[in-house]
Amino acid sequence: MLKAVSLGPGDLSLLTPAARWAVEEAEVVAGYKGYIELIPDEVLEGKIVVSTGMMGEVDRARQAVEHARAGRKTVMVCSGDAGIYAMAGLLMEVLESEGLLKTVPFEVVPGVAAFNAAAALLGAPLMHDFASISLSDLLTPWERIEQRLQAAASADFVIALYNPRSRKRSDHLREALGIIGRYRRPSTPVGMVRKAYRAGQFVEAVPLKAVDVDKVDMQTVLIVGNSATRLVEGRMLTPRGYHRKYAL
Amino acid sequence: MLKAVSLGPGDLSLLTPAARWAVEEAEVVAGYKGYIELIPDEVLEGKIVVSTGMMGEVDRARQAVEHARAGRKTVMVCSGDAGIYAMAGLLMEVLESEGLLKTVPFEVVPGVAAFNAAAALLGAPLMHDFASISLSDLLTPWERIEQRLQAAASADFVIALYNPRSRKRSDHLREALGIIGRYRRPSTPVGMVRKAYRAGQFVEAVPLKAVDVDKVDMQTVLIVGNSATRLVEGRMLTPRGYHRKYAL
Repeated sequence: MLKAVSLGPGDLSLLTPAARWAVEEAEVVAGYKGYIELIPDEVLEGKIVVSTGMMGEVDRARQAVEHARAGRKTVMVCSGDAGIYAMAGLLMEVLESEGLLKTVPFEVVPGVAAFNAAAALLGAPLMHDFASISLSDLLTPWERIEQRLQAAASADFVIALYNPRSRKRSDHLREALGIIGRYRRPSTPVGMVRKAYRAGQFVEAVPLKAVDVDKVDMQTVLIVGNSATRLVEGRMLTPRGYHRKYAL
Repeated sequence: MLKAVSLGPGDLSLLTPAARWAVEEAEVVAGYKGYIELIPDEVLEGKIVVSTGMMGEVDRARQAVEHARAGRKTVMVCSGDAGIYAMAGLLMEVLESEGLLKTVPFEVVPGVAAFNAAAALLGAPLMHDFASISLSDLLTPWERIEQRLQAAASADFVIALYNPRSRKRSDHLREALGIIGRYRRPSTPVGMVRKAYRAGQFVEAVPLKAVDVDKVDMQTVLIVGNSATRLVEGRMLTPRGYHRKYAL
């Protein structure tokens, strides 16, 4: 049995019972070491822990699949939602390549993703259609990312930006906001959230023209409002519709 | 105090402790009656319950704000994530219109949204950039919805479709899949999920050309794969990248 388990933003108050039970009943807990640290020590006691650094994803997935194949109850933990830009897919890829999809029961336990958490802290930015775009060009050509930014901006989606900076390139975010700025007013609210619901939490919403890209690190999630989003008392509010069916 | 509280898909195993505590400590619980029913009776005991039908959203929001203004700890419960196409925004709109944003503390408790749940049950469809589009034209002109479908399809986003049918019009989904089909192969996997993690759960993934729109009701969430998404053993798998940095 292999489960991709969502830990949520990190605070235990946002860990679902399903995720907690899955980790508790596991014999093997695999995960990026930063995520393993989110789990209370007493829960990990007596379990095999497979913990690797940030670049060890494939290795981690292979080891988890090996344990599951050997009949051990195995979980791969991910921060946020294991099904969003996370390990659920890589586990399925490894299972598939080893011909184990039919024999090893595989399940994803959904959770509170990074952008669900960011949105909550920012107010109500995701009341209307939205697009989520990762600015990491490690696995995706930058041209494709630009094309997506343009499509999302031109069709007035609220836009969530993941991985806004990389070690190698610091200008992705500036370029991305430049593309979005061709279609949105300079006053469009942009929310930035880092370490949501964890120590060191940072939450800020400012107009597009005032975004300081140097304040943004790799772990920040940004949410750019659509044409109707307003800044109200420092928070973001995207009204639900373009028609006004109700009068307030 | 006013909180927009996410109940998740409905099963208590996916209700976060934060959401449970918020409801438990509330004096007033407001919500669509179908959502109120998701809360165990013993939790509601002794509380004021403000429950209205599906079209009573504005009324419900106003009543909740009234209770909060009068000093009662008030929660508005939503299925899925209260911050995604849900009541967080309407509450902020009412607070704003009544000039209460500064005086009534307002908070959103994030949760497991409908499409997080659908994705988990379908495998790993959301491993790459995605767009979420509601097909309801109650509050949004259909032309704008078409524009978004086109933008998302042409830029190869995985696409989540909310509100795929309405009482009044049954052809929205057919039209939407037609637009997407101009940019995606007929074999593109499409996942359909209804009543995720609840009694009567329905999960199916089929090629785009084989989608039976008559199987889809208002509560179904659809996830359409991108150009790289595959159907494997009846589930959806979107590989994480276009480059292959790792060999499996």
